[in-house]
Amino acid sequence: MFSPKMYELGSRRLCIRELFEYGLKQAAIVGKENVYDFSIGNPSVPAPEKVKEKLIEIINTLDSKSIHGYTSAPGNMEAREAVGKELGKRYGMDISGKNIFLTCGAAPAIVTVVRALNLGQSEFIVLAPYFPEYKNFVENNGGKLVVTPADMKDFQIPIEELKKRINFNTQAVIVNSPNNPSGAIYSRETLEKLAALLEKRAREYGHAIYIIADEPYREIAFDGVDVPFIPTIYKNTIVCYSYSKSLSLPGERIGYVCVPDSVENSAAMFSAVAGAARSIGHICAPSLLQLTIARCTELRPDNDAYKKNRDTLYNALISYGYECVKPQGAFYMFVKAPYGDAQSFSDIAKKRNLLLVPAGDFGCPQHLRISTCVAHDMIERSLPVFKQLIEEKPQK
Amino acid sequence: MFSPKMYELGSRRLCIRELFEYGLKQAAIVGKENVYDFSIGNPSVPAPEKVKEKLIEIINTLDSKSIHGYTSAPGNMEAREAVGKELGKRYGMDISGKNIFLTCGAAPAIVTVVRALNLGQSEFIVLAPYFPEYKNFVENNGGKLVVTPADMKDFQIPIEELKKRINFNTQAVIVNSPNNPSGAIYSRETLEKLAALLEKRAREYGHAIYIIADEPYREIAFDGVDVPFIPTIYKNTIVCYSYSKSLSLPGERIGYVCVPDSVENSAAMFSAVAGAARSIGHICAPSLLQLTIARCTELRPDNDAYKKNRDTLYNALISYGYECVKPQGAFYMFVKAPYGDAQSFSDIAKKRNLLLVPAGDFGCPQHLRISTCVAHDMIERSLPVFKQLIEEKPQK
Repeated sequence: MFSPKMYELGSRRLCIRELFEYGLKQAAIVGKENVYDFSIGNPSVPAPEKVKEKLIEIINTLDSKSIHGYTSAPGNMEAREAVGKELGKRYGMDISGKNIFLTCGAAPAIVTVVRALNLGQSEFIVLAPYFPEYKNFVENNGGKLVVTPADMKDFQIPIEELKKRINFNTQAVIVNSPNNPSGAIYSRETLEKLAALLEKRAREYGHAIYIIADEPYREIAFDGVDVPFIPTIYKNTIVCYSYSKSLSLPGERIGYVCVPDSVENSAAMFSAVAGAARSIGHICAPSLLQLTIARCTELRPDNDAYKKNRDTLYNALISYGYECVKPQGAFYMFVKAPYGDAQSFSDIAKKRNLLLVPAGDFGCPQHLRISTCVAHDMIERSLPVFKQLIEEKPQK
Repeated sequence: MFSPKMYELGSRRLCIRELFEYGLKQAAIVGKENVYDFSIGNPSVPAPEKVKEKLIEIINTLDSKSIHGYTSAPGNMEAREAVGKELGKRYGMDISGKNIFLTCGAAPAIVTVVRALNLGQSEFIVLAPYFPEYKNFVENNGGKLVVTPADMKDFQIPIEELKKRINFNTQAVIVNSPNNPSGAIYSRETLEKLAALLEKRAREYGHAIYIIADEPYREIAFDGVDVPFIPTIYKNTIVCYSYSKSLSLPGERIGYVCVPDSVENSAAMFSAVAGAARSIGHICAPSLLQLTIARCTELRPDNDAYKKNRDTLYNALISYGYECVKPQGAFYMFVKAPYGDAQSFSDIAKKRNLLLVPAGDFGCPQHLRISTCVAHDMIERSLPVFKQLIEEKPQK
């Protein structure tokens, strides 16, 4: 006598998690060095030393209540100010504490914004390839998910396809750049086209259409590629952020929703976000981590390690004959299955203990997601297996 | 263009929070020592020294990924084992890691269980006086809240009233003992009556009726009063717990759902809980705190401080002529307004900077909740104000 829907959601593991758990089991059998686990997005780079220093400093110098007591629901005002001011300064916008609602990471941030925007079966558009949990976040919180197929050429936003999917019930487009799983960064040009389209349609329908900018990989970009901050391009953008990737703190559940002043009825929208958070049992973000990130807003991830991984793997795979659009950011590589569909190729690779995520759930059933936030030597050890697999391509 | 329901929820502050914020403002005007803030349940006792020690030890000895990396959704298995084993040992039950799902505190734990149990407009019964957020947790997650009026005599469970409210659609009764706001601890006798009633009705309807045991105050009890662990009395009990009160860590958002083996289809129910958590964006409980509480399972709150507060205030109020059932646990006192209704009395008290929460939202519009997790000297300074207020009782 429980909800069959929740049961199904809880027992049907994410494919990513399943591969990850399989990898742990196999490591126990064949040895850790013989498993090439590219499944999960757990940052391989440790948290910056300053995070550790600040954690200890806070614990040693503040009193228990200041560290561990309730904060207000949107968070400790000093922490919100620190986060907002740094963000505003970086992108030349006027952002302050009142625009920042600290959350337990990006996942509940997105759920919160979906619930705040949902007017009852409102439509939320995603752009393939997309993070599979968007489906859960939207559909289990009363919304309807609408999928725009991928632009396979460069994984930018396929504006013409998107156009066909916007209607009066469209409340938001979820934009994730740098993208998980493709590693694409939507260019300013692409985003300006998106903005123009949404503005036009919003005028036609007489109501705003929002961008939900899911940005946990914001700071992970290579080769000097520009990562535009979407609120500077489109005013009705609500940002969801997490420190999981940039500060390597995925287990700590600390992130935020930013509702810039440019959003229509910004203060009221912020209240709707607060209400939506309250409706899922949000009390506050973890208080010690609120204080910690407030003291670390200037820190940036160690992109050299991620770039080195990308370069090694990308160059090797291309030389073997794999097809892959070169990732500009994040720590994933999105590779076309060289034969069969992604699921069958993933199954074949799995037999050699090479764990690649088939991207059917990401909206691209021919592609595999390869997580590159791994130890560099594992990449090197895995290369012969990648090579063998493509060489075994069946002849037609 | 946002959800009016979420907007309302976000802009209509809890009365508790409103008084709390008012208190902060008044303190700046009349001086902190002249404001008697009994509004909020922020533990006045600091976290035990061992929590601090363990936090520092973990940060100094484990590597970044072990501390801050993702754990599995139900939590780090060692932490779950430590929590489950200690609980089982304490209450003579067989509880282990597989029964424990670590959460970001009790609030999302309750939301999660409501979502796991809700079959679509299922009914969830609460017993007045009840924590007002239950209404939000149930109604904004698809359930229907049914209120059983309080037994004003001793705030135990009014079985006859409850009986009338159980029907085929009843999925659960939410039980909170030691109780916020009354301080009552439901006796074994009361709970056995409740169990017998639910078992009988479950047989009649051919489906289980659950108890959701919300137990953040489990360890805060005085005078040796027994706090029965409800799963030992009723098999279909799902426990929601938080370390907010027992370890004075309310800002850290760490707690759990416990689904004992005795629950019908326990493993499947656990999956439903996992699915429900996933549906609201739960990824894992804060990882550093998971490791910390796992090393502190034997710690108990400093009840001497809370008992001293209760005794001072209770004895004084009774001597002045206030009516109040003596609290057996938690850190609240539930006092009948000596004249007018609770709201008007709260308003009068507020003018003297004495902040008492009117309990209309708790289902008892004649009562006031007084939070006794405050500095003892504030209680002493407040006594003349309590005395004056009752002496000013208007003559009929």
